Amino acid sequence: MTEFIYGHWPVMETLRASRRNIDQLLLSETADTRGIVGEILAIAAERSVPVKRVPRRILDDVTQSTTHQNMALRVSPYPYVDLEAVLALSKKRDEKPLILLLDLLKDPQNVGTLMRVADAVGVHGIIMQERRNVAVTPAVVSASSGAVEHLQVVQVTNLVQAMRDLKEKDVWMVGLDVGPNVAPIDKTDLNMPLGLLLGSEGEGLRRLVRDTCDLLVSLPMRGSVASLNVATVGSVALYAAWQARGWSGWAHA
Amino acid sequence: MTEFIYGHWPVMETLRASRRNIDQLLLSETADTRGIVGEILAIAAERSVPVKRVPRRILDDVTQSTTHQNMALRVSPYPYVDLEAVLALSKKRDEKPLILLLDLLKDPQNVGTLMRVADAVGVHGIIMQERRNVAVTPAVVSASSGAVEHLQVVQVTNLVQAMRDLKEKDVWMVGLDVGPNVAPIDKTDLNMPLGLLLGSEGEGLRRLVRDTCDLLVSLPMRGSVASLNVATVGSVALYAAWQARGWSGWAHA
Repeated sequence: MTEFIYGHWPVMETLRASRRNIDQLLLSETADTRGIVGEILAIAAERSVPVKRVPRRILDDVTQSTTHQNMALRVSPYPYVDLEAVLALSKKRDEKPLILLLDLLKDPQNVGTLMRVADAVGVHGIIMQERRNVAVTPAVVSASSGAVEHLQVVQVTNLVQAMRDLKEKDVWMVGLDVGPNVAPIDKTDLNMPLGLLLGSEGEGLRRLVRDTCDLLVSLPMRGSVASLNVATVGSVALYAAWQARGWSGWAHA
Repeated sequence: MTEFIYGHWPVMETLRASRRNIDQLLLSETADTRGIVGEILAIAAERSVPVKRVPRRILDDVTQSTTHQNMALRVSPYPYVDLEAVLALSKKRDEKPLILLLDLLKDPQNVGTLMRVADAVGVHGIIMQERRNVAVTPAVVSASSGAVEHLQVVQVTNLVQAMRDLKEKDVWMVGLDVGPNVAPIDKTDLNMPLGLLLGSEGEGLRRLVRDTCDLLVSLPMRGSVASLNVATVGSVALYAAWQARGWSGWAHA
């Protein structure tokens, strides 16, 4: 099975990460090959990826997107990893685990945004359920600006079971939730082995997921429109977690 | 001049805020009037807004959007305010000014996301330049889930002049910037009269805007893809500023 990654940065990062089998780079006949496109062609040449010039409508067709920016990379499916790889990375970096768990997110744009932030703060892995959660599709790769190609994503059969497995390894499960009885996020020290749980758009965390959490924290809101997008909530929470670790791993820290 | 606000939440919040002149609610002939639509119709009736059932294609046409959810509200243009109104709100709430300044943002989605967060953290106003920055269009209202209808937005001729005016009133101008010599955001106490500046997608802050800032702060990043969307950066920064104020105004604080 193959799929098509499209857009400048997604294609660039997929080539840079080189974790997928890469068959071919399709480039529109009319594409200008200077600037960023030239850089992408140079990396493709380095990686011995054949380039084929095609009519633009072929790109419209294979990507089923209007934002392909005249290029598509034919690749093998996204290389998921397992939970052990996530814990191994945290150990290798000598950092307490920082893991993002997604509970049935539906919108590729939200998942992509969260992946980009997860990359920026250095999470060791992202865990999501195989069924009823978006997978790492080319649309998610695009929404993440290619960041997900550098991340470790685990697809599990059952999210609650994965939470239990992590709890056994002393990783705390902290759910982002709403409501008057949930402590605000700054009242909890997030500098611990941490799994951060985000619930689906509109629905929030499922009851069993919420019940499996060790702690619930909330992001305060005071406005007239009492809700925030899950990608916004997750971005603020991931930054709070990284800040609690003193920006560890930051080049300028 | 009239425009059309579309989508459930944007229409709901425009009716609730009632700051615009509202001519008419257009509803698709086929729309189900239960649930949220029923609530919207009840508020429209309360506000004496006439409802007209129309073919769906009329909605496609007047909104030029596919996400109108079978309704459009014909209204007067967005009611901008002036700088004095922003400072007056901060005074009325007995809070140090918290103001968001946007330097030439182009993407309605980003601006809408930022408006929604600005509402959630209780900013007193948003300032943006009239030229070369997106205005509060129906697309921005939609992207903000209607939150902008409850916010105070100021359109200025010259952003740098507005910064100078605010500095004269002892509001500190703090720019979000990148680079190794810019202090991370947690090294600055944001619990002061604050104007937070965000630069445009791709370009960042213009030089003169940067030079007019009292302080520059950065959001650390450690990932493989060394950039974040401006809406993400702004969301994290706005929450940092509100947290520095001890979640003031939060019902559960």
